[in-house]
This record gives sequence, C-alpha cells and structure tokens, in this order.
Amino acid sequence: MNRQYFITEHRIQLYDTDAAGRLFFAQLFRLAHDAYEDFMERLGFPLARLIAEGELLLPLIHAEADYLRPLHHGEHVRLSLTIAELRQRSFAVAYRVHTPDGTLAATARTVHVQIRPDGSPGPGLPAGLRAALGDYREADA
Amino acid sequence: MNRQYFITEHRIQLYDTDAAGRLFFAQLFRLAHDAYEDFMERLGFPLARLIAEGELLLPLIHAEADYLRPLHHGEHVRLSLTIAELRQRSFAVAYRVHTPDGTLAATARTVHVQIRPDGSPGPGLPAGLRAALGDYREADA
Amino acid sequence: MNRQYFITEHRIQLYDTDAAGRLFFAQLFRLAHDAYEDFMERLGFPLARLIAEGELLLPLIHAEADYLRPLHHGEHVRLSLTIAELRQRSFAVAYRVHTPDGTLAATARTVHVQIRPDGSPGPGLPAGLRAALGDYREADA
Amino acid sequence: MNRQYFITEHRIQLYDTDAAGRLFFAQLFRLAHDAYEDFMERLGFPLARLIAEGELLLPLIHAEADYLRPLHHGEHVRLSLTIAELRQRSFAVAYRVHTPDGTLAATARTVHVQIRPDGSPGPGLPAGLRAALGDYREADA
Repeated sequence: MNRQYFITEHRIQLYDTDAAGRLFFAQLFRLAHDAYEDFMERLGFPLARLIAEGELLLPLIHAEADYLRPLHHGEHVRLSLTIAELRQRSFAVAYRVHTPDGTLAATARTVHVQIRPDGSPGPGLPAGLRAALGDYREADA
Repeated sequence: MNRQYFITEHRIQLYDTDAAGRLFFAQLFRLAHDAYEDFMERLGFPLARLIAEGELLLPLIHAEADYLRPLHHGEHVRLSLTIAELRQRSFAVAYRVHTPDGTLAATARTVHVQIRPDGSPGPGLPAGLRAALGDYREADA
Repeated sequence: MNRQYFITEHRIQLYDTDAAGRLFFAQLFRLAHDAYEDFMERLGFPLARLIAEGELLLPLIHAEADYLRPLHHGEHVRLSLTIAELRQRSFAVAYRVHTPDGTLAATARTVHVQIRPDGSPGPGLPAGLRAALGDYREADA
Repeated sequence: MNRQYFITEHRIQLYDTDAAGRLFFAQLFRLAHDAYEDFMERLGFPLARLIAEGELLLPLIHAEADYLRPLHHGEHVRLSLTIAELRQRSFAVAYRVHTPDGTLAATARTVHVQIRPDGSPGPGLPAGLRAALGDYREADA
C-alpha cells in the first residue's frame, strides 16, 4: 500500500560508452551502485561510514542485469530502485532504468548479505535498516 | 569428450579495488570481458573487427555474477571461460575465477545475441563461429 | 570583470576509491570530464551531439592533474570549472576541486583542439562557442 | 650507459574506448598504472604489499598525458616505462605508448612522493628502491 520508489537521474556519460556507440554493459552496474549509494545515504546508512566503522558489513554477493535496448551517450535516464527481497541477513535491490519516453531500457539486481568481520554470517540486519528497507519493498516481495 | 577451457590470467589491479579493500564487484565484468575479447580474437572473430565491419553484431543482453570470496589487490587469478549455451542466434559464456590455491572465488555469465543492424533477430550464427564456440562447450551444455 | 565559474557537485563514489582508501588518481579525470560534459551541455554544445554530427571535433590532446590532499569515499566535493586559455582552434579547461571546508584538494586541466574529420587543423572555433567559453575565462587568461 | 626500458604490451579493450570510437583519455592512465604496478612488482616492491604494510607510502601527486594520435579498439600497443626524475623523496615515471608500426601515440608521466602515515614528508626512499629505480633512469635524468 505504502510502496515507495527511490528515483535517481543520470546522463549516460562519454566514458560509459564504448566504440560500439552504446553503454558498455558493466557501466550499468556503475549507475546502479551510484543509486544504491544515494539510497543508503538517504536511509541514514551511508556506505562510507559503514565501511569505515566496520560494524555493519553488507558485501555484494550477486549482481545481474538485462539489457533490453541500447543506451547512448548523452541520454538522460531515470533509475528507480526498490527492495525486491528482504530477509534476516540479506536483501536484494532491484533497479529499473527508463528513458525519458518511458521505455524500460535495462534492469538490474544486486544482493547484499550481512557478514561479521571474520566472514561468518552476521547477527541479522539492524531493526532500523530493516524498517527503512521495508518502506521500499516491492508489492510482491 | 573434447571439452576445452580457455584460460586467462589476471592480477587484481589497484583500480579494480575499492576503499573496502576488495575487488569492486563491477570490475569482475571487466576481467570477464577481457577474457571474452581474448577468446573471440583467438577464435578468429576479434570484436574490434566485428564492430568496425558491422556484419556480425552480438550485443550482450544479460550479465550476472556470483561473488564467493573477496578478491584483493595484487592477487593473481586464473579465469577459465567455457560456452555454457549455444543456440541458433545466441550463446552464453561462463567464467570461473580461481585463486592460485585453487579456490573458486567468483563466477560470471554473459549472454550474447545476434541481431541485424536494425535490431531485428539475426540470420543465425555463422557456421565458422558456431563450430569454434562448440569446441568450448561445457559437457552438459 | 565578468568572470564566471561553472560549479558542479560530486560525491566520491566507492568505485572511485582504491584499496589505499583514497580516490584513485585517474578517477579525478572522470569527475573533471563529468563537469566538462555538463559545461558543454549548458553552453549549448552537448558532446553527444557534436560527436554524433561530427561537425565540430574537439579531441582532448593534453590532460594533467595535481593531487594536494587525499579524497575519501563519501566526501562531497565542489568542482569549479573555468577556461584557462582560449585560442583560435583550442582551449584549455581548468578544474579546481574543493572539499566542503574550502580546502583545495586537487586541480586538473584538459586541452581540447579543433580538428577536421581527416585530422588536420580545424577552421577555427565557431563564434558562438568562442563567446560562450569567453564568459568563463580566467581573469589572467 | 646502462639505461633500461621496462616494456609492457596491451590491447586497447572495448571498455577503454568511447562513443567517439577512440581510447577515452583517462584510460591511458589505466594503462600507465598497469605498467607501473608491473614495474614495481618486478623491482620487488609490489604495490599491494606496500599498501597493506603501510611502511612505504608513495602517493601519486601529479599525472599528465599528451595524446598525439588516436588509439582504437583492438590495437596492440607497446608501453615503455622509464624513470624521468629520481630525488630524495620522490620520483617521476615516464610512459611512452607506441603502435606496432613504431608511431608514438601518447606519452604520460606520474610523480610519486614518499610520505609518512601522518602525511608529513618521508625519510627518503629506501636504498634498495633507489638503486632499482636508478637502473631505469633516462639518460638525461
């Protein structure tokens, strides 16, 4: 009922493209991670602080993307971020990239899991983070 | 019976890592694409020529990766490439990244589909490419 | 008298940093080029259009940077862009990166020269571009 | 008399290029840093160990490059590295990039300075490093 999207806007930069004249596929993950960094900062869990303090470690264990139509240099795209899965110690973030005319050009997903500094499973996501993520959960997640 | 692996070696470069001290996830796709470019050049289908000539267009439509253990700056890794799927107009490439002690640190997969310059489905992979890819097909592919 | 600065704001992203915990030096050029793309778009000469149309070619022939203090993940920086030199067929762009407390953390410069499609010297910068660049010229340029 | 060059070979990768069909300028610094990492490893001072141990800190304080002719996807280039300056606490590395026909396509330079962990000037380069660097000094350096 209360589903929110986190929206960011990006221009496809010259260095995002390659000699085939299109977004180089791995750069989509740059866009996605930009949005994820913005998102976590908005939620009050900026990655820079998490990494520096080392208390809440959320390494990325999976990433995937589908490329539906080519993106070109200079295109302004809108990226919407939602939480696709929310578990005890992990969550999945879904990204959808639209061009200005509303066409879905690409989707991506990253999965983050909480660990302890020694690499063993973490104690469970902090309640504050869980609640914040929950606000962006997809309807069917 | 005749299964081949295409092997490349890489050192995790300083710019591949991030302030968390590990390989930044999207850089795994750089390693994978390096290997893919080497592979296609070995097969006699160098990407630079394909892109310049525009006759055989094989855009990447899907990418995914799993991160099993962290990779650090300066580590020498071995990447093995196989063909995981081989269809009429598309193929999937599988990448497995091992550290020197034989630990599997990451896997990735990219899917490439043949299109015509107008974006419509291509006429089918050339026989020479199909045969060359077939030599690297996984046992169960 | 009428000197203008073109200002952009950036956050140092995780992928900009390296395992030494700082901005990887080459990423400063990414920030600079982001600002340059914004600047040229503002001036009415978006790079994507220039490249696609091929009428006004302004390749970069020189780049340099000085790193005065380390920049870290998550820092919000302000980049000011000015025109350091303006000649018949070339111009130099100067970039100054400040941290929020006003410390100058880095400077950079890129030089762009007009060429014809065959690589020979161009006919001279268009009057509209020259005038627009002139508005951002440094006092002593 | 005893001047040595440190040579590395590279292929311009798809992700090094941009929609203008050429090497994106900042990627030259990637090539240069690849060569620098190889060089320091060869000299017995691998960057990964220096950074991890924190005893010998050699941050880059200056970088510059000149682009003499465009480099394209798939080109195989040869990079030669020499020491352009060698001082008490700093050194400059010069890079020259040639295409297979012997054309000089680009040059670059990076300057590294020794600091203490608190950022103050270092005590002077270790004798072993100084001697090793000296073997690659340019004739007029």
